[in-house]
Amino acid sequence: MGRLPSGSQNCITDVTGVRVGHITLKEADQGVCTGVTAILPHDKNPFLEKTTAVSHVINGFSKTTGLIQVDELGVLESPILLTNTFGVPAVTEGALQWLMEKKPEIGDTDSTVNIVTAECNDGWLNDLRGLHLHPDHAIQAIQQAEKNQLSEEGAIGAGAGMISYGWKGGIGTASRRLQRNDLVGYIEAMVLTNFGKPEELTILGVPMNHLKKKPTQPSRDGSVIVILATDLPFSSRQLKRLAKRTPFGLARTGSMAHHGSGEIVIAFSNAERKPHRPTASVLSSKQIAEDGPLMTECFQAVVEATEEAVYNSLFAAETTFGRNGRYIEALPHHQVIQRLKQAKDRL
Amino acid sequence: MGRLPSGSQNCITDVTGVRVGHITLKEADQGVCTGVTAILPHDKNPFLEKTTAVSHVINGFSKTTGLIQVDELGVLESPILLTNTFGVPAVTEGALQWLMEKKPEIGDTDSTVNIVTAECNDGWLNDLRGLHLHPDHAIQAIQQAEKNQLSEEGAIGAGAGMISYGWKGGIGTASRRLQRNDLVGYIEAMVLTNFGKPEELTILGVPMNHLKKKPTQPSRDGSVIVILATDLPFSSRQLKRLAKRTPFGLARTGSMAHHGSGEIVIAFSNAERKPHRPTASVLSSKQIAEDGPLMTECFQAVVEATEEAVYNSLFAAETTFGRNGRYIEALPHHQVIQRLKQAKDRL
Amino acid sequence: MGRLPSGSQNCITDVTGVRVGHITLKEADQGVCTGVTAILPHDKNPFLEKTTAVSHVINGFSKTTGLIQVDELGVLESPILLTNTFGVPAVTEGALQWLMEKKPEIGDTDSTVNIVTAECNDGWLNDLRGLHLHPDHAIQAIQQAEKNQLSEEGAIGAGAGMISYGWKGGIGTASRRLQRNDLVGYIEAMVLTNFGKPEELTILGVPMNHLKKKPTQPSRDGSVIVILATDLPFSSRQLKRLAKRTPFGLARTGSMAHHGSGEIVIAFSNAERKPHRPTASVLSSKQIAEDGPLMTECFQAVVEATEEAVYNSLFAAETTFGRNGRYIEALPHHQVIQRLKQAKDRL
Amino acid sequence: MGRLPSGSQNCITDVTGVRVGHITLKEADQGVCTGVTAILPHDKNPFLEKTTAVSHVINGFSKTTGLIQVDELGVLESPILLTNTFGVPAVTEGALQWLMEKKPEIGDTDSTVNIVTAECNDGWLNDLRGLHLHPDHAIQAIQQAEKNQLSEEGAIGAGAGMISYGWKGGIGTASRRLQRNDLVGYIEAMVLTNFGKPEELTILGVPMNHLKKKPTQPSRDGSVIVILATDLPFSSRQLKRLAKRTPFGLARTGSMAHHGSGEIVIAFSNAERKPHRPTASVLSSKQIAEDGPLMTECFQAVVEATEEAVYNSLFAAETTFGRNGRYIEALPHHQVIQRLKQAKDRL
Repeated sequence: MGRLPSGSQNCITDVTGVRVGHITLKEADQGVCTGVTAILPHDKNPFLEKTTAVSHVINGFSKTTGLIQVDELGVLESPILLTNTFGVPAVTEGALQWLMEKKPEIGDTDSTVNIVTAECNDGWLNDLRGLHLHPDHAIQAIQQAEKNQLSEEGAIGAGAGMISYGWKGGIGTASRRLQRNDLVGYIEAMVLTNFGKPEELTILGVPMNHLKKKPTQPSRDGSVIVILATDLPFSSRQLKRLAKRTPFGLARTGSMAHHGSGEIVIAFSNAERKPHRPTASVLSSKQIAEDGPLMTECFQAVVEATEEAVYNSLFAAETTFGRNGRYIEALPHHQVIQRLKQAKDRL
Repeated sequence: MGRLPSGSQNCITDVTGVRVGHITLKEADQGVCTGVTAILPHDKNPFLEKTTAVSHVINGFSKTTGLIQVDELGVLESPILLTNTFGVPAVTEGALQWLMEKKPEIGDTDSTVNIVTAECNDGWLNDLRGLHLHPDHAIQAIQQAEKNQLSEEGAIGAGAGMISYGWKGGIGTASRRLQRNDLVGYIEAMVLTNFGKPEELTILGVPMNHLKKKPTQPSRDGSVIVILATDLPFSSRQLKRLAKRTPFGLARTGSMAHHGSGEIVIAFSNAERKPHRPTASVLSSKQIAEDGPLMTECFQAVVEATEEAVYNSLFAAETTFGRNGRYIEALPHHQVIQRLKQAKDRL
Repeated sequence: MGRLPSGSQNCITDVTGVRVGHITLKEADQGVCTGVTAILPHDKNPFLEKTTAVSHVINGFSKTTGLIQVDELGVLESPILLTNTFGVPAVTEGALQWLMEKKPEIGDTDSTVNIVTAECNDGWLNDLRGLHLHPDHAIQAIQQAEKNQLSEEGAIGAGAGMISYGWKGGIGTASRRLQRNDLVGYIEAMVLTNFGKPEELTILGVPMNHLKKKPTQPSRDGSVIVILATDLPFSSRQLKRLAKRTPFGLARTGSMAHHGSGEIVIAFSNAERKPHRPTASVLSSKQIAEDGPLMTECFQAVVEATEEAVYNSLFAAETTFGRNGRYIEALPHHQVIQRLKQAKDRL
Repeated sequence: MGRLPSGSQNCITDVTGVRVGHITLKEADQGVCTGVTAILPHDKNPFLEKTTAVSHVINGFSKTTGLIQVDELGVLESPILLTNTFGVPAVTEGALQWLMEKKPEIGDTDSTVNIVTAECNDGWLNDLRGLHLHPDHAIQAIQQAEKNQLSEEGAIGAGAGMISYGWKGGIGTASRRLQRNDLVGYIEAMVLTNFGKPEELTILGVPMNHLKKKPTQPSRDGSVIVILATDLPFSSRQLKRLAKRTPFGLARTGSMAHHGSGEIVIAFSNAERKPHRPTASVLSSKQIAEDGPLMTECFQAVVEATEEAVYNSLFAAETTFGRNGRYIEALPHHQVIQRLKQAKDRL
């Protein structure tokens, strides 16, 4: 889909060095259906080699941490963690412990560290109040990320208990490849989908409100987190402009950012890394030339990757059982694809 | 289209008191194809009775004036003027003269006044460098607005020379009616469309890139201005939330806010008016209760009205000739409607 | 000091209903010198009766949580917690537990809750890496606040290990009384001071860089948190304007917001409270009339209270011992006052 | 004053290439007392060689133009113009004409241009409603700037009719020199002062509310514009951080940003220039390493230069006559200096 080519894996790990890990906790009879997803911006210590970053708040009904400092300094210096709403403190503490372990000077002779943790509310399937996530889960998710560079999708990690458009949501990713002369790079979107009413879902422009199968559960306001990763060189101001295009991608799937839906974008570029303690007074950096059609093409990549990542989260997620005997069904693939074919054939 | 009902006229003037006026300058052999559109927030002096207002910058490649003060104080105290990029100084001066005439104390014994003028670049059809707009044109547009409360659409006023998705763009409006218990009100969008590449246009989810007829002119980055008006009571913070939903409406038509496309939203509510010189130390006001589904329904109204207003600007605009023998064709209605029917029949 | 009168107690609890509690952990031989301060916006459940609120970031080198949602919705729905940088997760989790206990529907049949926790780095005196703060400490601080409405100052609660201008800093508060016709109210500032180099300190305009006694410890970048509380009715937009005046107060004490100094303002008004689940579609509210000199007087109150609160934090804090045999001395009161007298006598 | 050394001229033109020009209109019997000040960011065409720039709104009660685009793209591409509130349209149009003359493609085959014009209200001395400024005045001011690189101060240019702390205000400038290893550069502030009540003025920490001489005119809310210029390499995000330190400098002179006082900062660095049409896809740039004490020293430079520039505007301005037989007296230098000596001698 879209007009720009995908990356070879069409996922976040097309961006060199980016790694993702998931810890999934599913014990339906205990009411547990949640998890943690960790994203490492590159394969070195993120505190010692900081990546250019920025956040963008589409709808601030959200408990995300760390964004104030990201926006002030224009850098990310920790893994990004995704989890459930009440898991934020435990998961943040886990990431802190992992970083303290990595560098014993942090908080002693060196400065403290800023940790980015974003969340969606999985409380319909998951026993939020049970506070089932502990710091160790975050550490394990980061360690998974360190080992792994294949990104899974669907009802895993932080996506375990999420619901989108009435169907099972979760983790989705997609990437776009950009080339201009000798410049080649990727822009990727990873989403944690937990938003949308069933009647709003639109796939590739085709409304999905007439599927024979209907979601069996009441719809609720949700949330969505979008992580944009790229290996093209952008300044934090430019990343902000990219991040502001994600609503255009979400809208294509039917979103309108409901009142209670926390919608947050975190964007980073690992093309260049700032040393924790620079030795020179002046640093050199590179950035995309904004004039001309290249920037617009980058915006298009953001819109297309965001849209596709939402679809991928829905197609990859399987029917999932949670607390109180509740369950959320997977998107009925067959019906959706049939409807898409119908629509395509006749145009 | 959409799920919410339209207002009786389905346009900006469904919002009680809002009035719109246009001055159109078209002399193709002189290279003139431009104009001014004036929006009065209600039928009284906007300086003496200020309306709650806010702005939102989607893409700040724009020369709009007056937004800093609107955002600081949360009020609009002038007409809103729309015009071409180089017409902003003349049009602003015209609105200033109109306000000084209305109230001789302004700038003498009373304070100054903040004027909101937004613009798009009509320089492909119009001789921008000729500076053909003068302060009088703004005054005439405001006077038209005072007389008139039927809102026209298409290639008139500021829309005279605009181009959208390769076709003739301009002014479009649409409204939505909201009702909850004894609360009834309207949310309306007026757009000045000057954005989008031909291959991006999507109407009601159906891509329009396979129309037999193709635009004959090269596409360029453009801009879009969205005016949201409502007679429901919102605080400026709430209006900001509404304004942030306009990208979701624009996206449905194919937009992704190109690099060079200045995309600006100005939202106001005339449900309550602040006196220029309040006599009490404390003022009472009302605002929509944000909890519950009402706010989300208001967001939906913004998205639907914005989407439909873009379509209306395209359907209403006629083929237009401008400088250097150039012309922009109207959207081929017949082909578009045929394609929409095709798409609808088969789903 | 200043031109406006102080409240009767000249502290945060002059604002009706505001309560403050502290938990202080001081075990110098264990390297522990830290704590938690809790502020309750009024004497009812802050989740069920939300107060109008806003944040302002002066310098975002800070790990404060909860501000995104405060700014989106314009309300505070939790206690405000102050603590050390690495204590944020534990303290946030404590506040969450307290709120879950207060209302068993939170996170189950009702929505989640947004908790505001702000921090400064007390790692010079305190063993940050030891993570000595636990959720229970936050709960105890909140329970102290429920019982107590006398606000203490100095090296207590979150202020236990803070350093300001090279001297012992910590908690300080001051208030100003505003009256206009029959309107009477208070604006108060509570500060957590952990910023400034010794040579920068200025008290009432008099530089303190020639005190005979010099701080014995190396200066470091720090931070400052300012809580503005008021029982006057302001909208969140107006509170933002108040919050933006705090730098003018901090500057009078010598501040210039160093690179590494996280400077965050959280402002709330408890004059009106929004119900968690409003029953009407439209809510009435009141706000200060902004025109005229009243708003400027409110700004003056912010500036004066912020300035004085910083001084109070320094005068109240006692010499404190921490990890590794380190200690920070109290401001030498006698010398300071002598110098102030000198300056005053001769002008 | 301050701890950092001044530049050789202690003014804006210490920053290599920056040039300033003034046009002053003073005809007291006609009620005319106003002008235009133009700042050129370097000695080439500002449209073809764009400088890194950003704006910061301290108090948005202001009609400044062009800031939306400066903040979106991070560049300045025009002269900066300062003038009176009602002169903004004429002055903006003048700058537009100057730029169109410089480059005939603008608005024809090339893009449009974004012009930055800031204002204060000089309506107590000047006949604002007479609209005495015309586009030509802006062109002349820019041409003066092209010729001139000595910056004058006081009641000239846009400063002709301004009032500050009850005394005659206007244009003031000051600079600070920064050096670190082989890096040498300047940070400069130019202010247009039109703010403050007489009893608020503080010079070098010494209150000036007991001068024998009192201002004879009623005080009014005013405004202040601060232009920060530097030849050190900063990104636009870093310039924003610098701009946020200006309130700390203004506060030292007694400011608290009154309700009606529009306080706007425009900051630019001419260390590097972006070509209007870059030929490469990726551009290289340099920026100050933010870690370590250098950034804080830059902040100190901003604070000191801003503070001193305000003083310089007051000391340089002469008693000025305006409309209706009104006049504003110059700051009584002798009394002020005497008071400063008194204060200094005894500390």
